[in-house]
Amino acid sequence: MITLYDMPLSGNCHKVRLLLSLLDLPYLIQAVDLRGGEQRGPAHLQRNPFGQVPVLDDDGLIIRDSQAILVYLAKRYGGEQWWPDDAYPLAQIAAWLSTAANEVANGPAKLRVHHKFGSPIDTAAAGQTADKVLGIIDHHLQRQDWLVGDSVSIADIAVYPYLALAPEGGLDIGAFPNIIAWFQRICALPGYVTMPGMWQA
Amino acid sequence: MITLYDMPLSGNCHKVRLLLSLLDLPYLIQAVDLRGGEQRGPAHLQRNPFGQVPVLDDDGLIIRDSQAILVYLAKRYGGEQWWPDDAYPLAQIAAWLSTAANEVANGPAKLRVHHKFGSPIDTAAAGQTADKVLGIIDHHLQRQDWLVGDSVSIADIAVYPYLALAPEGGLDIGAFPNIIAWFQRICALPGYVTMPGMWQA
Repeated sequence: MITLYDMPLSGNCHKVRLLLSLLDLPYLIQAVDLRGGEQRGPAHLQRNPFGQVPVLDDDGLIIRDSQAILVYLAKRYGGEQWWPDDAYPLAQIAAWLSTAANEVANGPAKLRVHHKFGSPIDTAAAGQTADKVLGIIDHHLQRQDWLVGDSVSIADIAVYPYLALAPEGGLDIGAFPNIIAWFQRICALPGYVTMPGMWQA
Repeated sequence: MITLYDMPLSGNCHKVRLLLSLLDLPYLIQAVDLRGGEQRGPAHLQRNPFGQVPVLDDDGLIIRDSQAILVYLAKRYGGEQWWPDDAYPLAQIAAWLSTAANEVANGPAKLRVHHKFGSPIDTAAAGQTADKVLGIIDHHLQRQDWLVGDSVSIADIAVYPYLALAPEGGLDIGAFPNIIAWFQRICALPGYVTMPGMWQA
């Protein structure tokens, strides 16, 4: 059985909830009380020394990091549609997973945490990172419907949540029409699930 | 033929140079003049809209992002030793690629750019990120020789350069004995190559 160590308002957790739903995989949710500091307790640090959610437990196999969990689910349960066997599309997916782990996390996601939960951040640096990555993604999606190849991949799932949550960080996502059109394609996928605060058509 | 768009002092480029050497793959180096701003010119932005190095060109297939290039080379040329077929080790590798793209880039790598090239950064935040990630990796390597499984993988190659360059960022890497022992294992790999400023035994 799959258990997701989860926090409802986390966009990183939502990446996993979305892929689990698109793959139609049953799973249990184990809420981690971030306000109460449960993520820094010994039980959770054993699962993930970084003290973060999400963590996935699949019959005792423990995986930390939202991108890594997407890789695991795609490879183990997704078939070739979700995990191509060719090196070139795999590398393109990996490049967007890096973008999700770095620029998306340190731009739109960080601004949201600041605006929504009051975390102190360097807002100028986060704003600059957000503008750059949103501009690059919007331009990329001008020429193609999905981030890699001609169908949805875990690249889209990794990048999507914090872009769709960007308005909560004070960003004007309406200025990026190709991103909005991509949101609409993602929302139309069978099994799509949303979360509070997320962009809606 | 493989061409690496490279900058000699970049630890991200060194990840690629190191794996190319370990895999004994011939390649051409195309230096990108970062001081002259070549990375922001139209030719390079066409290869990588993020305006960064490294970029790999393998007979016309263009790959941006150092982690993605490692994935490409491992999958295409490395065999199962470098790219396991099982979902669980792949996910563990992917988790460390995220750590390389985020915490290692925003901790030790950022401090080095600040100390070495004078880039303005939030030194307190970068120092905190560096301390956390170095502590976690040192603890992880107390129980195992390599970051994932029982042999070297691209997880090690992705994380190694900016840890071995950490002294250039003013960090005392000697405080992490398990990391030092792991450096020694990496330096002993057939085909290992170093770069200026890197930790040496």
